[in-house]
Amino acid sequence: MNGAEALAHTLVDAGVDVLFANPGTSEMHFVAALDRVAGMRCVLTLFEGVATGAADGYFRIARRPAGTLLHLGPGLANGLANLHNARKAHSGIVNVVGDHATAHLALDAPLTSDLAAVARSMSHWVGTVPAAAEMARMGRAAVAAAQSRPGQVATLILPADKAWSEFDGEAPALGPVGPAALEAVAPDTVEQAAALLREHGASTLLLLGGPAVRGDALQWAGRIAAATGCAVMSELYAECIERGAGRVALPRLPYAVDAAMSILRRFRRIVLVGAAAPVAFFAYPDKPGRLTAPDTEILALARRGNNMEDALRRLCEALDAVYVPYLACELPSPSVLPAETDALNSDTIGALLSTLIPEHAIVVDEAVTTGRGFDAATRNAAPHDWLTIMGGSIGYGLPAAVGAAMAAPDRKVIALEGDGSAMYTLQALWTMAREQLDVTVIVFANRRYQILEGEFSRIGAGVPGKRAAGMLTIGGPDLQWVALAAGHGVPACRAANVAELRKAIRHALASGGPSLIEVLC
Amino acid sequence: MNGAEALAHTLVDAGVDVLFANPGTSEMHFVAALDRVAGMRCVLTLFEGVATGAADGYFRIARRPAGTLLHLGPGLANGLANLHNARKAHSGIVNVVGDHATAHLALDAPLTSDLAAVARSMSHWVGTVPAAAEMARMGRAAVAAAQSRPGQVATLILPADKAWSEFDGEAPALGPVGPAALEAVAPDTVEQAAALLREHGASTLLLLGGPAVRGDALQWAGRIAAATGCAVMSELYAECIERGAGRVALPRLPYAVDAAMSILRRFRRIVLVGAAAPVAFFAYPDKPGRLTAPDTEILALARRGNNMEDALRRLCEALDAVYVPYLACELPSPSVLPAETDALNSDTIGALLSTLIPEHAIVVDEAVTTGRGFDAATRNAAPHDWLTIMGGSIGYGLPAAVGAAMAAPDRKVIALEGDGSAMYTLQALWTMAREQLDVTVIVFANRRYQILEGEFSRIGAGVPGKRAAGMLTIGGPDLQWVALAAGHGVPACRAANVAELRKAIRHALASGGPSLIEVLC
Repeated sequence: MNGAEALAHTLVDAGVDVLFANPGTSEMHFVAALDRVAGMRCVLTLFEGVATGAADGYFRIARRPAGTLLHLGPGLANGLANLHNARKAHSGIVNVVGDHATAHLALDAPLTSDLAAVARSMSHWVGTVPAAAEMARMGRAAVAAAQSRPGQVATLILPADKAWSEFDGEAPALGPVGPAALEAVAPDTVEQAAALLREHGASTLLLLGGPAVRGDALQWAGRIAAATGCAVMSELYAECIERGAGRVALPRLPYAVDAAMSILRRFRRIVLVGAAAPVAFFAYPDKPGRLTAPDTEILALARRGNNMEDALRRLCEALDAVYVPYLACELPSPSVLPAETDALNSDTIGALLSTLIPEHAIVVDEAVTTGRGFDAATRNAAPHDWLTIMGGSIGYGLPAAVGAAMAAPDRKVIALEGDGSAMYTLQALWTMAREQLDVTVIVFANRRYQILEGEFSRIGAGVPGKRAAGMLTIGGPDLQWVALAAGHGVPACRAANVAELRKAIRHALASGGPSLIEVLC
Repeated sequence: MNGAEALAHTLVDAGVDVLFANPGTSEMHFVAALDRVAGMRCVLTLFEGVATGAADGYFRIARRPAGTLLHLGPGLANGLANLHNARKAHSGIVNVVGDHATAHLALDAPLTSDLAAVARSMSHWVGTVPAAAEMARMGRAAVAAAQSRPGQVATLILPADKAWSEFDGEAPALGPVGPAALEAVAPDTVEQAAALLREHGASTLLLLGGPAVRGDALQWAGRIAAATGCAVMSELYAECIERGAGRVALPRLPYAVDAAMSILRRFRRIVLVGAAAPVAFFAYPDKPGRLTAPDTEILALARRGNNMEDALRRLCEALDAVYVPYLACELPSPSVLPAETDALNSDTIGALLSTLIPEHAIVVDEAVTTGRGFDAATRNAAPHDWLTIMGGSIGYGLPAAVGAAMAAPDRKVIALEGDGSAMYTLQALWTMAREQLDVTVIVFANRRYQILEGEFSRIGAGVPGKRAAGMLTIGGPDLQWVALAAGHGVPACRAANVAELRKAIRHALASGGPSLIEVLC
């Protein structure tokens, strides 16, 4: 068997059976091997950032890694921004990146670059296959790295000659590589948190992040809040929040520094569960980076890699809160619904979404400024999962929606996109069309980098002049999203008021395939 | 003055007055400074790969660096693939990349990454501004690095606090930073080449690359060939080739390994001028990496950084060839023209282009497989410049066309694009529309990665199976280029035969602004 076949066998055997691919010549032997090895679902993307973003979205829903297949240093480079987002989301990913044959590297052919340096800049784990016979071992090591907890970005460099070389024997079948074990939180730490909450519940914030915002962990947190009077919130960003009617009411910290500070400074104490001590997204000349007051007492109950569900359950037990009902969200009251002819803005769109998000849907949120109000507005929608942009690098949303839809073909996916953000990786639309993914893309077309207009004013630079204004708006010409979608093979329409948007969303969700709605707002 | 203003002043003063920008919050003080400092032309791009590719194209035509403005590690990461191409083209570029304020880095906010590592992976020069008062010195050093010969990719990291901090004094006005001096070739080397050509002209290839394929250097090379009987050719890729009627007939080495080897092995001796000893683009199991026969005698007359025009002139003098006329291309004979109803393929499109490329035009070539025959077919067109994809990372063409058009607003730019290639950076179309650049984009829509189908067969993998075929074709659904162009604000049409393509190209060239033609081939 050759090295390429060994790697294909190893990945499928280890449990990586979805591959978001954009291969080139140096990966042709691996592509040929995929024809001969059963079990891999190959999804072509037309730009590498779509492949890496899709792998991020896939992990967040499937909780196991997908692979990507990328072409040398520049191909991996195109995928780095979404690997950055995946790193911050602690998503496990196995990148397979072809390289020139080893002897060819010294010849400095056009596509030669320092591939390992490109890989290291955004990967937790980088390995280069030293020989075809080592392919299975290296492939399994890459999957194991991705299956660390928290998950890791693993990049396996596959020199073309190691892919095409034959070796004696074959890849062993050792079965799926499961997630690494989580570390239990020390009893002392749980007791410390219990003592703090018993005594100071009302002045304490239980701040959740990562795996603590879903499943049983979230329910234990809700019971602790109900029993002790502490507040419970989520970090601004979390990779997958379970929310909606019947679930624990869990406000997110806001993006704006002043608003976040004003909330955080209501609390003398913060217990962190999978969350970091809150910091500003960006630094500003006249604002602090840490958002808590200097004298806030901060206790880290559980960090990434800890078993948060177990820690929160034990904390619940220590507090006698195991059977306390948590404060659950209720379905929205019809009285909050906007009128049919209302214009579309953050409030009216949020209210609409609260009634239209289907049960069990996955919402991928890259709505940036238009979406600022959606957290409160949609908290009472039917139960759903909400994915946010963990690394802040825009262009994550459409690819993550591809990955989420691949991970959960039976669920509806809604991608909420700013027009500026959506442009970075719009090629994802084509993959949605090709795979007929059940994704409804809603693009908020305000024709400007609205977030930057806000930042420009916040730094005290006044009204943008001509040159600055040219860099803060994306009009002149306006992007035509209906045409962009059609060009990628995705049906699309426009909505300019509440009635039109309601109709468009209903129609898109009913279609069962990809659709795009351009919202003029 | 604050650091941001000092940097804006310094760049304009040093001669960098075009900035391809995609800024974010950490660059807002610099954006505000650009409002207050006269002389910078700011061109917004919607994706960073467009900015870096445009800077590459700009340098190739203007012969001086443009700047880019990018947003932290992930923003720079999105620009890396076209920086790779720019490196290989030896294009000088000054990247200004904002970073978090220094104190903020320790807080690990979402957009924090190892920016310096990302920068180093594709830059020749990386500097971080240590203080606002050092801004002018660092900015000038970045421009000087870009103005090295060969040109360099210089990346200046601009921490937000250094941009917003005030300092005493202002940025000194020291005037433009010119290109670094070129090194003269040693007299012995010139004499060695002269002796070789005198004795073995007929069995020698004069292989040109880089700056040797244009201007006086090219003419001297043509005279040497005419006087000694040596052959003269260009490397497969060169950053800007002057070609067409009246210019030295200069075939390019072909891409295919066998074809290149069969040409090169006709020669016992090769004299390199700005070229490297020829190697294969990719390695194959059964083919050599070096394309010359092992006993070929190779003499490097001039390397990158040498004064090639001077070396070739002195070689001409040594050979008494200064007044020998060179073999010039003639305008094409009308007899080669295809019939109006002929289908569009590499041959008929090439023949059409040979009559339609306007005098003084700039052709940006990323036509990949469809364009394989264009070299021979268009050699006799009206005189024009031809830009190729130096680093082989597809997605360079549309951005480079943006940069070329910015550098030469009085010239027609024609971008020849494969449909696969064009998708990587299609956002460049919007910048063409916004700046109303005189660019005619011709997309060859064969709906497949045709180059990979060839490579798949070359590795002996036979006929692609279902999984492989899915990764080699980009149909299902077909991309609709007329809609994609319209979505970005660029008028577009389709052409399916010779008459339609001729009419479409004439119409596009006459429009004076951007247009796109989808060629069904």
